Amino acid sequence: MLNKFRFFDSNSEVRKIAWDLYSKVKDLPIISPHGHVEPKLLAENLPFPDPTELLIIPDHYITRMLYSQGISLESLGIPTVDGSSVEQDHKKIWQLFAQNFHLFSGTPSGVWLKHALEKVLDVTKPVNEKNALEIYEEISTKLKSSDFLPRTLFEKFNIELLATTDAASDSLEDHKKILDSDWSGKVIPTFRPDAVVNILSDNWKNEIDKLSSASGVEISNYKDFILAIENQRKYFIEIGATATDQGVQSPYTHKLSEGEADAIFTRAIKGTATIEDGKLFIANMLMEMARMSCEDGLVMQLHPGSMRNHNSKVFNKFGLDKGCDIPMQTEYTKNLHELLNKYGNNSNFKFIVFTLDETSYSRELAPLAGHYPAMKLGPAWWFHDSIQGMTRYRQMTTETAGFYNTVGFNDDTRAFLSIPARHDVARRVDSNFLALQVSQHIIEMEYAHNLMHELTNGLNYEHTPSQ
Amino acid sequence: MLNKFRFFDSNSEVRKIAWDLYSKVKDLPIISPHGHVEPKLLAENLPFPDPTELLIIPDHYITRMLYSQGISLESLGIPTVDGSSVEQDHKKIWQLFAQNFHLFSGTPSGVWLKHALEKVLDVTKPVNEKNALEIYEEISTKLKSSDFLPRTLFEKFNIELLATTDAASDSLEDHKKILDSDWSGKVIPTFRPDAVVNILSDNWKNEIDKLSSASGVEISNYKDFILAIENQRKYFIEIGATATDQGVQSPYTHKLSEGEADAIFTRAIKGTATIEDGKLFIANMLMEMARMSCEDGLVMQLHPGSMRNHNSKVFNKFGLDKGCDIPMQTEYTKNLHELLNKYGNNSNFKFIVFTLDETSYSRELAPLAGHYPAMKLGPAWWFHDSIQGMTRYRQMTTETAGFYNTVGFNDDTRAFLSIPARHDVARRVDSNFLALQVSQHIIEMEYAHNLMHELTNGLNYEHTPSQ
Amino acid sequence: MLNKFRFFDSNSEVRKIAWDLYSKVKDLPIISPHGHVEPKLLAENLPFPDPTELLIIPDHYITRMLYSQGISLESLGIPTVDGSSVEQDHKKIWQLFAQNFHLFSGTPSGVWLKHALEKVLDVTKPVNEKNALEIYEEISTKLKSSDFLPRTLFEKFNIELLATTDAASDSLEDHKKILDSDWSGKVIPTFRPDAVVNILSDNWKNEIDKLSSASGVEISNYKDFILAIENQRKYFIEIGATATDQGVQSPYTHKLSEGEADAIFTRAIKGTATIEDGKLFIANMLMEMARMSCEDGLVMQLHPGSMRNHNSKVFNKFGLDKGCDIPMQTEYTKNLHELLNKYGNNSNFKFIVFTLDETSYSRELAPLAGHYPAMKLGPAWWFHDSIQGMTRYRQMTTETAGFYNTVGFNDDTRAFLSIPARHDVARRVDSNFLALQVSQHIIEMEYAHNLMHELTNGLNYEHTPSQ
Repeated sequence: MLNKFRFFDSNSEVRKIAWDLYSKVKDLPIISPHGHVEPKLLAENLPFPDPTELLIIPDHYITRMLYSQGISLESLGIPTVDGSSVEQDHKKIWQLFAQNFHLFSGTPSGVWLKHALEKVLDVTKPVNEKNALEIYEEISTKLKSSDFLPRTLFEKFNIELLATTDAASDSLEDHKKILDSDWSGKVIPTFRPDAVVNILSDNWKNEIDKLSSASGVEISNYKDFILAIENQRKYFIEIGATATDQGVQSPYTHKLSEGEADAIFTRAIKGTATIEDGKLFIANMLMEMARMSCEDGLVMQLHPGSMRNHNSKVFNKFGLDKGCDIPMQTEYTKNLHELLNKYGNNSNFKFIVFTLDETSYSRELAPLAGHYPAMKLGPAWWFHDSIQGMTRYRQMTTETAGFYNTVGFNDDTRAFLSIPARHDVARRVDSNFLALQVSQHIIEMEYAHNLMHELTNGLNYEHTPSQ
Repeated sequence: MLNKFRFFDSNSEVRKIAWDLYSKVKDLPIISPHGHVEPKLLAENLPFPDPTELLIIPDHYITRMLYSQGISLESLGIPTVDGSSVEQDHKKIWQLFAQNFHLFSGTPSGVWLKHALEKVLDVTKPVNEKNALEIYEEISTKLKSSDFLPRTLFEKFNIELLATTDAASDSLEDHKKILDSDWSGKVIPTFRPDAVVNILSDNWKNEIDKLSSASGVEISNYKDFILAIENQRKYFIEIGATATDQGVQSPYTHKLSEGEADAIFTRAIKGTATIEDGKLFIANMLMEMARMSCEDGLVMQLHPGSMRNHNSKVFNKFGLDKGCDIPMQTEYTKNLHELLNKYGNNSNFKFIVFTLDETSYSRELAPLAGHYPAMKLGPAWWFHDSIQGMTRYRQMTTETAGFYNTVGFNDDTRAFLSIPARHDVARRVDSNFLALQVSQHIIEMEYAHNLMHELTNGLNYEHTPSQ
Repeated sequence: MLNKFRFFDSNSEVRKIAWDLYSKVKDLPIISPHGHVEPKLLAENLPFPDPTELLIIPDHYITRMLYSQGISLESLGIPTVDGSSVEQDHKKIWQLFAQNFHLFSGTPSGVWLKHALEKVLDVTKPVNEKNALEIYEEISTKLKSSDFLPRTLFEKFNIELLATTDAASDSLEDHKKILDSDWSGKVIPTFRPDAVVNILSDNWKNEIDKLSSASGVEISNYKDFILAIENQRKYFIEIGATATDQGVQSPYTHKLSEGEADAIFTRAIKGTATIEDGKLFIANMLMEMARMSCEDGLVMQLHPGSMRNHNSKVFNKFGLDKGCDIPMQTEYTKNLHELLNKYGNNSNFKFIVFTLDETSYSRELAPLAGHYPAMKLGPAWWFHDSIQGMTRYRQMTTETAGFYNTVGFNDDTRAFLSIPARHDVARRVDSNFLALQVSQHIIEMEYAHNLMHELTNGLNYEHTPSQ
């Protein structure tokens, strides 16, 4: 059974204050302004197939840990790119997972799993070799009931708003289906242009074609391309989008002249773009995306610093998002200089920056967010979306950026069942952080209550309407 | 009301030990070996004009935070470079500040402000929208009384010594005025050559002219320049200086040959120096400053790693020191190699190194200071002069450098009223750090008392007379 | 007297849990899979000469700290390279050390010394100026008794296995002597090729000659060289080795073609190799060592990121390992990319990576070890083998890599008497870390007991036999 005071400091005074703060926000609705849930899930509202399909196969946090301990991805049923065969017996996969449950001790995956099992699926037996199949059957039965349909869970989770992440070229059919349905759940798209700005990707021309057809702009040069992006942003806004998101290796920003940009675009079309071209084009597109945000009011989110698909053997066999994206050192002070100089003082611009490099928290990001009106700090991201990770985030950003230059928590997840767990952990960690500050007489209790409310449901700059 | 045990750990055992340690040092005189108080303040000893002029307008910690939340610097009364108009109603500015006081929750500015208001200005009402003007009047009245004249506060603060920071070309008139007065407060200058070694600055030739006239050396080549610096150092020593200070972007050190240095100097005079010239000249001047310190005994302080004036819009309109200096990644092991190899073993040399890049604490600075006899670590600096920042500093330097290779606290401030607050926070954080070590049986209480005394008023290497 | 609960959290609940966890593992045998004890010590089993020779002169942790405070290495009796005279009076050196014992407050050296004195040498008087000579005599007397012979202490320390570190060209005479003796203590070699792969070192050709004669391969080209290494690895395995170890400045890995490698080797033989050659040759040898490990099953350990002999004055006068090796920024994600891509998925390969750059824990190393089956994280190393250092290691690696992708503690020491102290500190810190997790309801007590056992004597991947 999950302990009521979990994740709070062991000191009884701190624990008491933390509980006091937490208890006021624990039942507030969930605002999920950035994540990777498939809109199809809520558009179709079909039952989840089985426990393994729900909790293991699509969750790269889980599969990477099992893989790191010598368990093959084939034996975990991960589908291959070439369709070669993998384990199909989902009970066997579940059994393998249960036997290795100890590997998740002290990890956020362990915390989220235990929460989802107990609080969502009502499973209170410990997961282990012995209980594995019994638990599998218990969950299987539940998943067939209408109480566990995606929309029912959405409501049970008390989700006020869920943002998905969608390719720039997406037609947003699933979002339209939801809007046209009689269901009132609020699910909005986020504009993500990665595939169309990464001119070096094998798939780029195909993506440009999709963008052409989605935007209705025949793209033959850079100018057309920009117009298509602008049109698609408008379309996303019509469907409810309030933000964009971009994932880049380096946050380098630099505006190219129209001529330079067009020359690179032409080389890209011809397939002769260089690596340097690729970097410059992205640096330029960050500037362009910021300009467009100043104009159309979409909040700009930036997720830099991951070296994607580090393990080519796994990538070639299993494709993207299989747990082998590895963070890199990331520099912000110089890389964001041009963008912040041009747009950082603009009151119509909100720019939310994330990092996988915790060294930038106190050295670069908090000082930048503590000065530029446009810039805010995204919450602790990915590997750092964890108890100690979120604690370090607050410890290293608060004194320089304050609380009000950070944005509220986002769950960033494709694991639908983990959404309540993730928000609960964030609320607990923030309550505990504030409780420590209160107990050390740094912050008064009255302020702490207000802050806790702001951190939970207030500082959602992703949805700040532009002025 | 400020709590007696503020900033101590919540554990009652630790809190008790921390109080025991703190209570023995809390009333010791303040030694302030590095800071930015204007000597004019104490030379003229005029009343502070009003609360806004005293606490808000000159404090870039305060104004940057308000600016980051969309409050314009004009509305805060910050004077513009071109004299264009800004808010003149200081009550209105104070009201705006008070309304936004919650932004300082959890920040050192919040901590210092509350201390200055309660302990110096005897204001116990909470700062908020409602109380704003009442508090303004209360402070205004006090500032007119002779109890609040700068010299009276200096004595009330129990300041034993205050070092200012002064340009290499400064005539030190204000210091001489203080020395010639019947007031016995000890205020000494610190030699800061930044303006005369930064050959790429627009203002450089002007600074060289000032150096010429201050030093009495007509500077037409590199040799003259070095002689002028040496002469001015002698003059500073006569007026009481015990240290120099240098702020550089990178701590790269490299001795140029006389010929190379002179060639660069000549290009600088002609206005044809390159960016590379600028870097090399500073690298060379760090070597020269170290050499001179070995000869004349001035302690050498180094403050690297800030990218000054990151926001050109703010810089162009409002000038220097407006909260847009942003830290950068800083490397010490290779950059200081040449300097430490040449002078690091010299018993007549003390070299105090600071950082804005906390990653260097445990990786580079503590190992270097834990080996080279000349090198000591300056206290947690600027953004890190805070409760958590100072705690991290001790956590990440102590095990490798010990306590005795660090130097005592300095407040580094231009905010005169915050001096007691800053020293008090440092004493509390150090007491608490030692209390944790005592409670965990790492350090014996007897050693802890000695250490606490050393950390407060002992390890002032800035004033160690040369042998 | 050492407190029973030392290094545990001050909170009584946490302390209780920590003690509970610790008490179950405190008497488990010591497995020391990586260290620098001279095998000669146990081969010859001669009495230790005197306290100064035992505890001060060979311990660069101690001497660097004293040196950093202006005490000359000559006065500490450190032998010089040219044989010039140094202090010979060991009582005088001991007195100097005792007078300066306060310098070790809060450092691991202080912790280890106090443990060795009390628990190994039965000295309970505090070390200070006054007690110095009395303690010296007390220890001297003991060292003459057979109870303090190296093998007797080895048994008293309950060492199950001790790995030494041995040059690739070593004949392992001391190890053979131990094997051939009637003493059953298990002491095994570790294959360290640094001296033969560093083609730029002055001593390289001499080392190659030694490798030739040890391996029985006349080395005249790269192919011979590789063969000689392979042969020596086989020989080390025969004598009991289970692992290799490599110390490099950068962990850059890159396979050269046979032709490129041979060309560089030829230039090295001629003395015309460039700095770039030196880097590429090491990058290539890391790939080769990984390949050989896949073939012969030796576990591969990598210790990167130290700039050796930073202080040339000290190096020239006193030689290697005198406390002036300084860590540098170290990058892993890109540098290990080629090696991990080629061998990281190999089930016959174990690759243990260490770091002196703590920023890589959460950013690079935990994500890599949390994905690649071959890669494991070595324990907190060198400057970070300390209470706070080990705590940070767990805080920053556990949530991403879990516990099972880290390896058990190693003491890495040449200070024989500190071995029990170092393992005791590690057991205490891990117990305390787990106790915090238990008290915060992140880990269940049952799991914590299992984990504590694994961390102490389970996760010794260095000795995992290859499959």
